[in-house]
Amino acid sequence: MKEAVKIVTIGGGSSYTPELMEGFIKRYEDLPIREIWLVDIEDGKEKVEIVGGLAQRMWDASPYDVKVYTTLDRREALKDADFVTTQFRVGLLDARIKDERIPSLYGMLGQETNGAGGMLKAFRTIPVIGEIIRDMRELCPDAWLINFTNPSGMVTEAAIKHFGWKKTIGLCNVPTIAMMAEPKLAGKDPKDLNYRFAGINHFHWHKVFDENGKDLTPELIEHINEKNGGTPANIYQAEFPMELLRSMNLLPCGYHRYYYVKQTMLDHALEEFREGGTRAEQMKQTEKELFELYKNTELHTKPEQLSKRGGAYYSDAACECIRAIYANQKIHMVVSTQNNGAISCLDDDSIVEVSSIISAAGAQPMAFGKLPPAEKGWLQMMKAMEECTIQAALTGDYGMALEAFVLNPLVENNKDTQRVLDELLVAHEKYLPQFSEKIQELKAAGVHTEDPAVEDLMKHGR
Amino acid sequence: MKEAVKIVTIGGGSSYTPELMEGFIKRYEDLPIREIWLVDIEDGKEKVEIVGGLAQRMWDASPYDVKVYTTLDRREALKDADFVTTQFRVGLLDARIKDERIPSLYGMLGQETNGAGGMLKAFRTIPVIGEIIRDMRELCPDAWLINFTNPSGMVTEAAIKHFGWKKTIGLCNVPTIAMMAEPKLAGKDPKDLNYRFAGINHFHWHKVFDENGKDLTPELIEHINEKNGGTPANIYQAEFPMELLRSMNLLPCGYHRYYYVKQTMLDHALEEFREGGTRAEQMKQTEKELFELYKNTELHTKPEQLSKRGGAYYSDAACECIRAIYANQKIHMVVSTQNNGAISCLDDDSIVEVSSIISAAGAQPMAFGKLPPAEKGWLQMMKAMEECTIQAALTGDYGMALEAFVLNPLVENNKDTQRVLDELLVAHEKYLPQFSEKIQELKAAGVHTEDPAVEDLMKHGR
Amino acid sequence: MKEAVKIVTIGGGSSYTPELMEGFIKRYEDLPIREIWLVDIEDGKEKVEIVGGLAQRMWDASPYDVKVYTTLDRREALKDADFVTTQFRVGLLDARIKDERIPSLYGMLGQETNGAGGMLKAFRTIPVIGEIIRDMRELCPDAWLINFTNPSGMVTEAAIKHFGWKKTIGLCNVPTIAMMAEPKLAGKDPKDLNYRFAGINHFHWHKVFDENGKDLTPELIEHINEKNGGTPANIYQAEFPMELLRSMNLLPCGYHRYYYVKQTMLDHALEEFREGGTRAEQMKQTEKELFELYKNTELHTKPEQLSKRGGAYYSDAACECIRAIYANQKIHMVVSTQNNGAISCLDDDSIVEVSSIISAAGAQPMAFGKLPPAEKGWLQMMKAMEECTIQAALTGDYGMALEAFVLNPLVENNKDTQRVLDELLVAHEKYLPQFSEKIQELKAAGVHTEDPAVEDLMKHGR
Amino acid sequence: MKEAVKIVTIGGGSSYTPELMEGFIKRYEDLPIREIWLVDIEDGKEKVEIVGGLAQRMWDASPYDVKVYTTLDRREALKDADFVTTQFRVGLLDARIKDERIPSLYGMLGQETNGAGGMLKAFRTIPVIGEIIRDMRELCPDAWLINFTNPSGMVTEAAIKHFGWKKTIGLCNVPTIAMMAEPKLAGKDPKDLNYRFAGINHFHWHKVFDENGKDLTPELIEHINEKNGGTPANIYQAEFPMELLRSMNLLPCGYHRYYYVKQTMLDHALEEFREGGTRAEQMKQTEKELFELYKNTELHTKPEQLSKRGGAYYSDAACECIRAIYANQKIHMVVSTQNNGAISCLDDDSIVEVSSIISAAGAQPMAFGKLPPAEKGWLQMMKAMEECTIQAALTGDYGMALEAFVLNPLVENNKDTQRVLDELLVAHEKYLPQFSEKIQELKAAGVHTEDPAVEDLMKHGR
Repeated sequence: MKEAVKIVTIGGGSSYTPELMEGFIKRYEDLPIREIWLVDIEDGKEKVEIVGGLAQRMWDASPYDVKVYTTLDRREALKDADFVTTQFRVGLLDARIKDERIPSLYGMLGQETNGAGGMLKAFRTIPVIGEIIRDMRELCPDAWLINFTNPSGMVTEAAIKHFGWKKTIGLCNVPTIAMMAEPKLAGKDPKDLNYRFAGINHFHWHKVFDENGKDLTPELIEHINEKNGGTPANIYQAEFPMELLRSMNLLPCGYHRYYYVKQTMLDHALEEFREGGTRAEQMKQTEKELFELYKNTELHTKPEQLSKRGGAYYSDAACECIRAIYANQKIHMVVSTQNNGAISCLDDDSIVEVSSIISAAGAQPMAFGKLPPAEKGWLQMMKAMEECTIQAALTGDYGMALEAFVLNPLVENNKDTQRVLDELLVAHEKYLPQFSEKIQELKAAGVHTEDPAVEDLMKHGR
Repeated sequence: MKEAVKIVTIGGGSSYTPELMEGFIKRYEDLPIREIWLVDIEDGKEKVEIVGGLAQRMWDASPYDVKVYTTLDRREALKDADFVTTQFRVGLLDARIKDERIPSLYGMLGQETNGAGGMLKAFRTIPVIGEIIRDMRELCPDAWLINFTNPSGMVTEAAIKHFGWKKTIGLCNVPTIAMMAEPKLAGKDPKDLNYRFAGINHFHWHKVFDENGKDLTPELIEHINEKNGGTPANIYQAEFPMELLRSMNLLPCGYHRYYYVKQTMLDHALEEFREGGTRAEQMKQTEKELFELYKNTELHTKPEQLSKRGGAYYSDAACECIRAIYANQKIHMVVSTQNNGAISCLDDDSIVEVSSIISAAGAQPMAFGKLPPAEKGWLQMMKAMEECTIQAALTGDYGMALEAFVLNPLVENNKDTQRVLDELLVAHEKYLPQFSEKIQELKAAGVHTEDPAVEDLMKHGR
Repeated sequence: MKEAVKIVTIGGGSSYTPELMEGFIKRYEDLPIREIWLVDIEDGKEKVEIVGGLAQRMWDASPYDVKVYTTLDRREALKDADFVTTQFRVGLLDARIKDERIPSLYGMLGQETNGAGGMLKAFRTIPVIGEIIRDMRELCPDAWLINFTNPSGMVTEAAIKHFGWKKTIGLCNVPTIAMMAEPKLAGKDPKDLNYRFAGINHFHWHKVFDENGKDLTPELIEHINEKNGGTPANIYQAEFPMELLRSMNLLPCGYHRYYYVKQTMLDHALEEFREGGTRAEQMKQTEKELFELYKNTELHTKPEQLSKRGGAYYSDAACECIRAIYANQKIHMVVSTQNNGAISCLDDDSIVEVSSIISAAGAQPMAFGKLPPAEKGWLQMMKAMEECTIQAALTGDYGMALEAFVLNPLVENNKDTQRVLDELLVAHEKYLPQFSEKIQELKAAGVHTEDPAVEDLMKHGR
Repeated sequence: MKEAVKIVTIGGGSSYTPELMEGFIKRYEDLPIREIWLVDIEDGKEKVEIVGGLAQRMWDASPYDVKVYTTLDRREALKDADFVTTQFRVGLLDARIKDERIPSLYGMLGQETNGAGGMLKAFRTIPVIGEIIRDMRELCPDAWLINFTNPSGMVTEAAIKHFGWKKTIGLCNVPTIAMMAEPKLAGKDPKDLNYRFAGINHFHWHKVFDENGKDLTPELIEHINEKNGGTPANIYQAEFPMELLRSMNLLPCGYHRYYYVKQTMLDHALEEFREGGTRAEQMKQTEKELFELYKNTELHTKPEQLSKRGGAYYSDAACECIRAIYANQKIHMVVSTQNNGAISCLDDDSIVEVSSIISAAGAQPMAFGKLPPAEKGWLQMMKAMEECTIQAALTGDYGMALEAFVLNPLVENNKDTQRVLDELLVAHEKYLPQFSEKIQELKAAGVHTEDPAVEDLMKHGR
């Protein structure tokens, strides 16, 4: 019998932590846990303590004896960890507000994982993942790193390819949500379906076969614009052009709307922004309400409200993955892992999000074979954009950041492109030490934002 | 001593034919010619006769005894040809008017080689190049096909990869114009410079080294936004972002403006369109004036006016290439030819526009090595777009045409995307037999254009 | 509930058929069968009837009601088949005698799947698999083809890549035997191990990880020269050089001895040949004895003697694979299937033998990632040899056959190389219609064998 | 006008130095030289002084005023060098004697560039090239490194790929000799022919086209077994199988005999060895005679005897290459340079020997396109063997050395394989510091050679 494990969650003060706890409680028989550490930073102290309290109450209400620790000392937590999960957000929601507001003000997409916002999030996050790995190398050299901090694909690529932590797996809820919806749409038992996903995080396609080997993809395409068609709740469901999907005979992910019907998505996002500000601003309110609930010492279950958010099932996917590794279950999951030929038009050492078998030996991707020509072109371009973004995040190379911006289809190429990059760099100065020289230069040249909301955030320290 | 050659020009009625004649006269000592055949179709009969008359007068005024034939019978002309040049335009300038007007009316780029217009031009042209090759296989199986019909890269890819005519070389004036401008900018003798071009037609980059092996690229980048910076006259010179070019350390081609500062180019094009209609409409006027000049039986030289047009030097490049093959000159030219690894991130059988050595054995491309990551992504995406376009042109597959449209960065992805494709297909019905079934369906569904100018053209037979 | 299936076995008169029956009986609950057809040719009529009788008795002794048909009419059998298994041997054992004797007489390896013999077997077999597929396309267009006719990898490559039957899976007993032996050697439960096989048929390597993700490969390497180390019974166990295996940290397959210690294997084979003739001659005797047993109408189980032969577990692997497809079991098997990037240094459309997940959707290979440099070189060379062999088999191109011979490391490159090829072609004339022109030429030039045993076979019609 | 250059020759005491001087004198008008430094080590002091004297006399007899320096101080010589040529031999001819004798005693090929001998030469040479580059980085950071130390391809790969000296070009006389012979065989003017070479050093193929683009390859294949067919004088001309060459339609290099008719070459080499010892022993005698000639202070030209040796034209190729760089000549040469896709089945960063254009910007390889399948397999295997050899040379990894040995087709795989490696390592101990730990272990285990000639060399210090 294997020993019970120590799990460490970086960014433990997240409002999603109760989902994580629920996922572990549900799987305890296969995945015995000896202790859980929720790590956060000074700015997240109050939140981690509140959610840590709820977490402990959830375990106490379960049949299992698990101790939940909260700490601001990452190194103390990492010591002898078996699994480290990352769900932190550098700069908290205030940073996301900037990511979303600044591009929006120039008529560009304000979105936290794709477009300009996602790139800045990568700039802020990748150096921190590097620090975590440096600590892990010293304190828990055999641990698995299960990342679901966004942009999950780029962060995972940095972790594996650049920081050399081969035992990293990246997760996302997008494939999970599709695989929850599709059996219902097709009238099938989930366990009978055979999935073949290929792509990168927030930019993947898949095919589905039934228990007789029949390709269900054409049938499922016809349902894709339906309300329960498998798209995460946080994505506006602009209509996919059906003749496009029928031609490729692949199921796109929800985020493909940002590319295939880009202008429609942009128009909607800008309208939302004008009417109600950014998603991040709304989320801040939602979070506040959630933490009010969490404070209630009578509460010892995950509140219903959490399941309706865009980030639902991220944590569940993490629990599922950890169990599969621990219990050597050899099950199918869609994760971000090293390509190794699974998508043959990308480099072997790229990180891709593909159907994989998860076992004690980690994630082994399944070879997808050739993509159709258009999808191949899309994917190669997007991977190049990721590579440039990661390179800029690692080195603070401004030219490379600009190349990534210009290549990204969700950044408009006009006279403001460089301005948007510049304002974002200045706005996030505190979290971008690698760009500090350039930021000083930009500030000296007078680059600043005129958005009062962002100005306000900057004045108050983030 | 080798025998004098027979040259056949398909689309011989083009207003550019005098440049071609001038080019051959200039090179006659290295490239003796026994006869030249100008071939055109019924609609071009008057033009080919006018320009054929001028052509003959040009030769008569030279020291060389060359007979110029004009004919509407392509097969008669092709018999025993040594070199076949293609400069035809399916549907003449009226087709170009439609290519430019319809996207413009939906706020998209109206441009004949890139964007929606270039794709429709590929749909019309590729089947015709197939017919020409079928005739060549029978009538002049050893002839070289020198293509400068646009979109030159896609037409050349179809000729080599799909129709199997290995002895095809595609030409363009864009590299020529850059290589004419840059020695002046750098204060160098042209013969001292070492060029390394890589990319595809209208989407290539290059590096330049001097007689000491020094990389002149950084220096030339600083001149790129100048009036004489090497951009063809027909491209609006929106400013390239300098930090972008410095980062990549490659000289882009003039057409890269459509991608790197896309919105600026689009805005300018739409403004031009609102003010003065399309380029094609202007060109129609210019052509009319040129043909008036050509009719003058006193004229026996290429009129000055021709050199100032966007298409200048296309013909000269063709003459240069033919001479290099005939005289086994082993010189450097930038041509569209089979990749064979020259750009290692594209397939071996793709057609690319690269620095090549031209000899009696044809074009042998020089291996460029790895592109920087952003440029690799751009190029792979654009090649995929070309592949989808060619596939649709060959098969009439509407879904594939739509995939190509959605992938093309110069086609906006909004609610009108499919409408633009549909209107273009209907407008060009006469020249798109491969799409006829779909076009009938579109027409039955009421698809039509509301542009009076296009409607007028359609009513009058094109 | 799915319907019971019809299974057709080409080469049904094989002495291995009882193992196949046993395998189906054992799995009947998961894989209900409505009828089994054993197909053979005129020369195999007596054998197929004897073994068909035993097969029916085996089913009659089981709890299941399955009818076994024997026929010489392949088309009658194929009608509406669900699974077609191929275990035929073109020219029967007499052909194998020639494959083994002729190279041996020139001091080269006489071996039926590798070396000169295996290549000639490919020449004879590939055209026949093409004919079977032609029939299947017409008579059972949805059937799976489960091939275990040797050389299994090349036959499968021809079926999928050249004859276009995508629903083909190739099987072999070599991985099965290794996976039966290794859990015992490592003291592990078979279900706990994680296997990663990569290579081509009779030329693959693998790694093994335990239930904790620990790499067991180093430990298993130390056992490889042991009697029960996982090598099939028919391969002489010359010692692998341990420092070689430790360096690569991969478990080779038993057949790698023919390459890593080539001379030792050759010396042993030649000694065996001098002492006791060929394996095929011994097998002919064994077969005779087996068929004597099979005739016994009291017998209704697979005789023990069959399990000890080199070909054991081939049939069992076939049954296992068919069950996994039928019951959509998503299990790990090592099969020959289309590469699709699983081994990234080989082409996507090559057939490889790799760890795959078998489900109703067929075999999906798992991406192995980069091979170490030496193994990459070995594998690329061997795949090239296979490609040349298949090409020669399809076209009868003598030069290509010679290129394959010279490239094959098990064919000696000396003054006799071409002679061995020539004699083999002449000796197998009856089964090599694609080479008939060359064979006539060789015969006219006096090419013949001086081996009395082969001469005798040729005189008596094979 | 460019400045006159400083040339440094490492291994300046070589008997081939007079050819190098002759080459520079011949090209002085295009390549003005200010000084030449001949560098050698203590053991070569006498030789470098003798040959330096002759070199100076050769220049003095020319119209040019060039000073030849001889020195044992490499760093002094490298200071401000423009071109560094390398023609040194670690361990001098005595090391070659060991490379040739030890394999021969076990019935394997004793050959200094291919087989076991060439691999050991790589082990000895690669660390030294690393030291030279370390010095160059400091003392002449802009110099070109022109390598013709064997194994030229592997040494060049180490220099470029591992030591990072991009301005390295590797040379060999094999292509030169073929391109000298073939115009005569085809009755053509050399300048009219178009060559396309592809492969790696001592393992390349080529095609030839004439001034009309006609493929002369088939015609030249028919001459290949003739005395003046283009094979270097030092290679025994066993007959190539004509049907093999006709099938591939490529001209092999002379060294391909070691692979295509391996056993014949081995038999001949072993017979030569039994009769007259090794080539190295003969060369030692030849060298002795040459240096006697060189001592003659009346001599001021390259003696005729030098042209007849296997190494002729190496130096001339070096002079030609240096001139082409200096004078920016843009000529075709066949050199070892970075692949960059020229041979698309090898990695971009591999070093290959291919048709290249040599200019001030260095060597730009021409894209060859796909090799036929058998040649692709051969080449990938040989490149893998080189990679393993280089890896072992850099790291002293014994397992990797063994993998390279087993993969090399010219090393027999039998019970002695490891023994041959072990004896060679022990015999070359002095020059293999990277392997010293393993060598101590081997010596402790009693590994030694029983060859009296080698024992004698070892006793006397090399």
